[in-house]
This record gives sequence, structure tokens and C-alpha cells, in this order.
Amino acid sequence: MTMQPVLIAGEWRTSISSGSFQAENPATQEKLAAQFPVSTWADCEAALAAAATAAEELQKLPAERIAEFLEAFAKRIEARKDDFVKIANQESALPVAPRLADAEFPRTTNQLRQAAAAARDGSWTQPTIDAAANIRSVLAPIGPVLVFGPNNFPFAFNSAAGGDFAAAIAAGNPVIAKANTSHPGTTQLFAEEALAALKETNLPLATVQLIYRTSHADGEKLVADHRVGAIGYTGSRNAGLKLKAAADAVGKPFYAELSSVNPVVILPGAIAEKSADIAGQFTSSCLMGVGQFCTNPGLIVLLANPNTEAFISEITTKFGAAPVGTLLSSSVASSLTKAVTTLQSAGAKLLVGGTAGGGKGYSHANTLLRVDGSHFVKNATALQTEAFGNASLLVVCADLAEAANVLRQLEGNLTGCIYSSKIVSDDAAYAQLAPILRQKVGRLLDDKMPTGVAVSPAMNHGGPFPATGHPGFTAVGIPASLRRFAALHCYDGVRDNRLPASLQNKNPSGKLWRQINNSWSQADVLPLPQ
Amino acid sequence: MTMQPVLIAGEWRTSISSGSFQAENPATQEKLAAQFPVSTWADCEAALAAAATAAEELQKLPAERIAEFLEAFAKRIEARKDDFVKIANQESALPVAPRLADAEFPRTTNQLRQAAAAARDGSWTQPTIDAAANIRSVLAPIGPVLVFGPNNFPFAFNSAAGGDFAAAIAAGNPVIAKANTSHPGTTQLFAEEALAALKETNLPLATVQLIYRTSHADGEKLVADHRVGAIGYTGSRNAGLKLKAAADAVGKPFYAELSSVNPVVILPGAIAEKSADIAGQFTSSCLMGVGQFCTNPGLIVLLANPNTEAFISEITTKFGAAPVGTLLSSSVASSLTKAVTTLQSAGAKLLVGGTAGGGKGYSHANTLLRVDGSHFVKNATALQTEAFGNASLLVVCADLAEAANVLRQLEGNLTGCIYSSKIVSDDAAYAQLAPILRQKVGRLLDDKMPTGVAVSPAMNHGGPFPATGHPGFTAVGIPASLRRFAALHCYDGVRDNRLPASLQNKNPSGKLWRQINNSWSQADVLPLPQ
Repeated sequence: MTMQPVLIAGEWRTSISSGSFQAENPATQEKLAAQFPVSTWADCEAALAAAATAAEELQKLPAERIAEFLEAFAKRIEARKDDFVKIANQESALPVAPRLADAEFPRTTNQLRQAAAAARDGSWTQPTIDAAANIRSVLAPIGPVLVFGPNNFPFAFNSAAGGDFAAAIAAGNPVIAKANTSHPGTTQLFAEEALAALKETNLPLATVQLIYRTSHADGEKLVADHRVGAIGYTGSRNAGLKLKAAADAVGKPFYAELSSVNPVVILPGAIAEKSADIAGQFTSSCLMGVGQFCTNPGLIVLLANPNTEAFISEITTKFGAAPVGTLLSSSVASSLTKAVTTLQSAGAKLLVGGTAGGGKGYSHANTLLRVDGSHFVKNATALQTEAFGNASLLVVCADLAEAANVLRQLEGNLTGCIYSSKIVSDDAAYAQLAPILRQKVGRLLDDKMPTGVAVSPAMNHGGPFPATGHPGFTAVGIPASLRRFAALHCYDGVRDNRLPASLQNKNPSGKLWRQINNSWSQADVLPLPQ
Repeated sequence: MTMQPVLIAGEWRTSISSGSFQAENPATQEKLAAQFPVSTWADCEAALAAAATAAEELQKLPAERIAEFLEAFAKRIEARKDDFVKIANQESALPVAPRLADAEFPRTTNQLRQAAAAARDGSWTQPTIDAAANIRSVLAPIGPVLVFGPNNFPFAFNSAAGGDFAAAIAAGNPVIAKANTSHPGTTQLFAEEALAALKETNLPLATVQLIYRTSHADGEKLVADHRVGAIGYTGSRNAGLKLKAAADAVGKPFYAELSSVNPVVILPGAIAEKSADIAGQFTSSCLMGVGQFCTNPGLIVLLANPNTEAFISEITTKFGAAPVGTLLSSSVASSLTKAVTTLQSAGAKLLVGGTAGGGKGYSHANTLLRVDGSHFVKNATALQTEAFGNASLLVVCADLAEAANVLRQLEGNLTGCIYSSKIVSDDAAYAQLAPILRQKVGRLLDDKMPTGVAVSPAMNHGGPFPATGHPGFTAVGIPASLRRFAALHCYDGVRDNRLPASLQNKNPSGKLWRQINNSWSQADVLPLPQ
């Protein structure tokens, strides 16, 4: 079997590799045929050099050209949808339908088109003009972006087609994609179509490059390279923190999405009002995609009372009865087993599940654990261990004060939900708990589960550490996600004809939103009174 | 002499200290009388606990209340202007007039009032509303902010009154100020007036706290504490990088301003056109404040020709003839001597100056060094050593290609300037060099020197590492500087009456700028069609 090539500087080249790996079909536990290379530094160096040149070239092109590429890419992907769905299913065991074909695939092309529209419009760059002082600033491309995609979204967060990719490209930067080891073949297909789309739209061919894997040392060297502008990383906390430290040491923005248990508080009134409904929502949210979502509801905060006990019985039954899905990989399965053991060692009691296996291929029984709030507070670090997969911990609190203490102990999370009654009043409890939860999460939800991350301009898929590395940015939601991959460029006394079009007196499109003298406007800058 | 107290939780308390220090008058080299404490962790712990409580209380207050505090504080400072100017002059040796009394002092109160106006207006929070999905997001206070102020602006960047302080407070966060060791007395005065203003406006008294110094280990523990939201640091690169690493490891945004040589390119046409004018501007900019500005022009890129030699002669004469000022401290003086030695060891030749002394107190001769572009490229790291003070390195390039290579070797800087002719055309050279310089700096200037950082909404006092730790943010310019001290808070399906006022359907002031369904607007959110 020949080794698959890497995509560097517009060519599918033989990798200068130090080894190889194969993806595995998690449902059959059999290795897939294709051999992918572990790149040495020689590949990284070549990709960095080409990316630096591409970055300079991209800066000279109007954003319209980037929009055309993103749209051509989306169209090309759609033409090969069956191929994408087939290989992603083989590599991830995620169901063909509805998950891959009907949900994640159209989400991915939709993201690419939204990113194209944002690039074309340009308002995401927030041009800011102080006409009297002739000082003007705008968000501009930050430089080559490294994208490390996660295992759980072979399409929508793929390093060569997903959210970070779309945002980085739309912001005007070339991308060096580092494939997730669990779906190299899917990533390769995306890169093939990206290269074809680059040729079709006549963009610098090194705008999209692909390597599959490096040594840990080369990974750390890569993120800290002087030619890199920023990094988008979604993946394991341990690996992410090492890369983050390397990038931070030289001031490279490292947008990391690392870990989140996504607390859900269910107040007594809500349980009294619609216990069965919430039990169904929770079971569905927690087991959907075999629980392998960043926003999986992993920590449920309840208040002790008979209704709560009935609710717990109901969800325990549902978890036991639900089919057991296939996990994404052997390492996801072993990490889940380990996390469930850690939670038990920390004092959580098993309600249902808790054992490996039970489904096709790599799998783990649908699992619920339970612990008292007082105990959680005493052992909060271990009891916040993320059990990535189809498992969740219920924290039953004696009273509101204890629930407040539980929330105070939380690390940063992507989301926090509060279910409250619309009939029986939970308002006082909400008023007490919401301000505490608010500080711990990026997105606060009323009366719904956290899975389902709309690609909305107002979305925040982010949050305080360790959910992410900086609580001011979102990885989902266009155009906001583009701002991660931008540097602030100020022009002080620069002649009008030398300014970027977005900062010249004339509004280049008549539609660009600019902040002129502290008001947002689509108008031209008026000549100053003489 | 009794030890000065620290300000913790609204009280001037005896520090639980591990030692003491005194400030020094740099002009007389005599220690000032007041003894200031080196705090132990006990002080830090008390300040953190109080700050966390204050942060929760501040969240509940309307921004109007914060604006009132900032304005009351500005007014109180003005009433004691003479005291401030006197002690700052003693501690820094900066001239009473025009520097302290006529420039820096009014700038400081102006910043506080601009920050108050930004807090009151609220548009800096960029409320974003997706009405159809009922997803809404807004920038919200990030939590207690630690401010480490620099030595070179006892007022305008003071940790208890300067730019970072004003931005952090206006964004709704309490501040723990860590005084700069060179001006503890000035900082103490600010904290006294801040406490009085907090009492006057009935804000949580721990909104402003002050410690003077800690051990290095406690400093690293402090920035990484779970109760801290973010850090603003301006100071030495070595100390800053250690603190940054500690903060980064736990995902605390660390806004650092570390080092910048602020390249200035002077193109041949500009020298031909107005050599004497530029020589005057450069000399004044480089020697102003004894060169102790973050934006001091420390690296001048010139193209070899007879006019350039005449220009170099002229500025060499000017540097030799200009009075030698007093530096801020013994450590500034010794660092400057060391940096000039480093530059010489790296191949730079001394044109004038180069020796310690020559002025009153701590001082160093006005210094110019020179190196060829080809040599710079070969030894670019050492030749970018920041010589903080009244010194600058001239890099004389054989041709444009060599100048381009010099610029490519630069680290990140706050500013980059290009002087070009308006008569003789330098346009081709500008077009070649500006795109390279653009990527290396936060602010690009045409035809002027980089000192002078207007407090403009379009300012960027920031730039790529090591100028700062993240190229997307500015430390100067309101309201942009507030965004550093904010977290993105998304509300997904949250009931209208539970939303912050800025996200409710009704525009709370009728003047708040919000991004509603992708357009900026001051209107209410219209009811959705049923």
C-alpha cells in the first residue's frame, strides 16, 4: 500500500515522513487500508514557507476573491456528497442518515457560504474612523492559521472544511490543516476539493495545505513558528495545553476548545411542571451522537425532593433502555471508561451503565452517576472530570444554597442551562443561581438542552477556561468567529489612497458598516470643515 | 518611619508584609522617606476575596453608577493636582511642566471621563441580536482585573488611575492595582482618591484595591488565581513573560505590553525634500521624555546615499548638542547602558553618546548607533534589543531590497512609520515596503514620528508579539480598550425580562448601538411576525 501524499504549496507531494498510521472503522474495529504519513519537520517547514507567501499574496486580493473560493469549494463538496458521507461513516461510525448526510454535511456547506458572505460584506472587520484625527483602524488578516480539528465532527469542524477553516480563510488567511487522526481520509477528500476550488478561482494554491500528523515536538515547534498567525485547536485538554503553552510563549493566539461538562440546572418547578418532557429532552441530548458533543450535558444539578427522585428513576430507565451507540475510536472508549472510574473513585454512585461495551464496535453502556451536592463541593475538581461520551453525572443538592455552592465550584464551561417553571414560580431560585452560572459559561440557556449550536451571528461557542483559552471569542457564529483570526491594524495620518478600501473616505460598497466618529454608519466619510 | 498601609476591601490596612522598599528620587539619587510594604500572600488572598465579592456586586449595578464613580474620581484628582504633580516629579524626575502638569495629568483625567462616557453609553459591549433564533450576545465584565502599571507614566498608565485601570473599571470590573515600584507614593495618592470617590458614589469599596509589591512567586500565583478575570501588564519583557506564562497556563487573558523598537523608514525622496524638518522631528521624538516611551523611535531604516549621510550628520550633531535628561530609575539607566553595549557587541557602531551619565542623577548620553542593513539581517535578534531611553539605532541599507529584508526580520512592534516625499515620488518604494511593515506593527504612520498616542476610538496601541501578547487588542483608545476586559456572554432562548437591559427588545437608552439581524441599529427589536 502506498503512502498517501501531503498537500503542500499546491501539490500533492510525497511526505518526508517518520512513520505512518491508518484510520480505523470504529464499528468493525478494523483498520482502513490507506496509509497516512507522520510528517517530519521538513514537511512543516515547506508548508510554513508556502503559507507565508500565500498570506502576502492574499493580502493583495479583494475579499470578493476569497468569497468566490469558499463558494466554489462548497459547490464542489456538494457534488461529491456521497463520497464524503461514505468515507466519514467508515472513519467515524457516525450514522449516514440523518447525522452525516442530512445534518452535518449541509451545516458544513452552509458555514462555508456564510463565511463567503461575511468576507464579501466586510463588516466583520469593524472599520473604525476618527475623521478629525485621521486615525483609522480595521481588523486585518493575522497570518497563516494552523487548524487542529476534533474527532467528533468529521465535516463541520474538519480542519480542511469546518468552522475554524471557514473563519480563518474568510478572514483572509491561508490555512495549514492538521488532519484529525481519526478521519484522515475525509480530510484528504476535503483538501482535494479545496485545491481544485483554489485552481478554479485562481487563488494562491498554498491557501489550503494539509498534513496528517507530526511528532509532539514538531507540533509544538509548528505552533510557535514566527510565520504562524494564530491557531485553532479543538481536542483533548492535555495535548491542547502543551501546544497552547508553546504558542503562548511567543504570543501566538491559540484558540483552544478543551473541555466542558455543560451544567444543566433543573429547578423544582420545572420538574413539577414537565418532568417527562425534560427527561426526554435530557436523554435525547445526552445520548445523541453517543454523547460525543462539546456541549453534551454532562452535569445535571437537581434539588432533592420526591419529584426529583421520580425524575431520576425515569431517566435511569430511559438510559438503560436506549440503544448503545458506537464511539468514535478506541481512545474515546478507553477515555470514557477511565472518566467514569474517576467519577466513581471521587464518590459518585453508578445509577445505570458504567461498563465498556454493549454496542457495536467501540462502545460503552449509557451511563448515569449520582452524587450529593455537599460531596460535590468537597471534591469538585475530580467530579468535574469530563466523561466525553454517553455518560452524565447528577448532582442532587439539599437546597438552593448548596446548589449555589456547587455552581461556584465549577470551572469554565461552554454552556449552562436552567430549566424553570413558567407556571409554578422558580423565579427566586433563578435569580439566585443564574448570576453565578452566568460567570462560568459562554452561553446561558433557558429551558433547553445545550446540544444544538446554531450558526448565528449572536452565538457564543466559547467560554472561560478550560472551555476555551480566551472567554472573549466564539468558534461558532459568523461573522463573530472570524475575529479570532485577525489583528488590529491602525493607520495614523496615512494618505487616503494608501488606505485599505474599507478605511478610505468613500464607503467601497455603500453597504459596509463602519464606526465613524463613534456612530455606526454605511455612509461615506464627509469632508472635514476647512 | 511607619510602613505605609495597603488598600484592601475598602480599608487602609497594615500589610502582612515580608519586607519593605522605598522609592528614589532619580534626580538626586536619594531615597524618599516613605516605607512601602512587600505584601505576602495573605494580602493577595484578602484582596482577591474582596475583589470577587465586589465583582458580583458590580454586575448588579447599572453602568451609569460606574460612570459616576469615574467622573467623581477624575474630579477629586483634579482638586489635588498640585499634590500629584509634586510627588510624581519626586518619584520620576519627569518635569513638572509641561510634561506632568500640562500633558500627562489632563490626559489622565480625560481618559477617566472618556471611559465614563463609554460605560454610560454601553455601545462598546456590541450587543448582538439574532431575533429569529432568539440568540443574543454581549460583552460583559470578565472579573477582577490585576493591573501592573509601567514606570514611564506615573499618571496616564498608573495602575490605580491610568488607561488599563479606566478600561477595566469602565468594563464593569474591580481592579487590584499593583503599584509600579518606582512611584508607589503617586499610586497611593490615586488610591486614596479612588476610595473617597467610591464612598462618594456608593460603589463597592473593593472596586479599587492597592498593593505595592509581592515576591515573584506570589505574583505568578496571583495572576493565575481562579478569581482573577484578566491582567493588564506594561513593563519589562522578562518579568512580563514569566507572569504571562503563569496566567496563560490557566487561560487568564494577559494583556502585556512588553517591548517595541518602533521602526521608522525614511525614504530618499523625503530626505531630499525635507531633511532638516525630519531631523528635527526625529531628535525631538527620540529624546522627548528622555526617550522613555513605549513608542520611542528606536530603529531608523535609511537608504544609503549622500543625502542620507548628511541627514545622519545632522542628527548626530543634534543628539550631541541636546541636553541630557534624567532617567526614571537606576535600573532604567543600567538597562540602557547594557542595551547599548549589546547593540555594539552585535556590530553597531557608535555615532554619538554611548556612555552613562552626563545629566542630573541617573542619566545616559544621548546616543546614536549605526549599522548596515546587510549586517542587521545577519544579526537581527541582537540588533533589535530595545534600548529603552534616549538611544536609537540607524540601519543604513544598500537598496530597497535590503530594506525589505530588514523589515522582514523585525519582531512585532507597536508602531511603524514611513516618511515619503509628496513631491519627488517615493510611491514605488512605499508600495514595496509598507505591506511588509504593516504585518509587523499595530499602527502604521505616514510622515510622522510614533510618539504621541492619541486617545482616539480608532487608535491601536498594540501589535504583534512581543509588542503585546495578542495583536487583536489595543491598550489605548476608548471604547476599544475596554473590550480586553470582557467576556462574551450569549443568551440562548432566555426570557426577555431575564436578559440584561442591553439585550432586551427595547433599546434601553434609545442610543445604544446594537447589531440586530446583521445591521447596526439604535432601534428597538421589532416583534417577530406571528
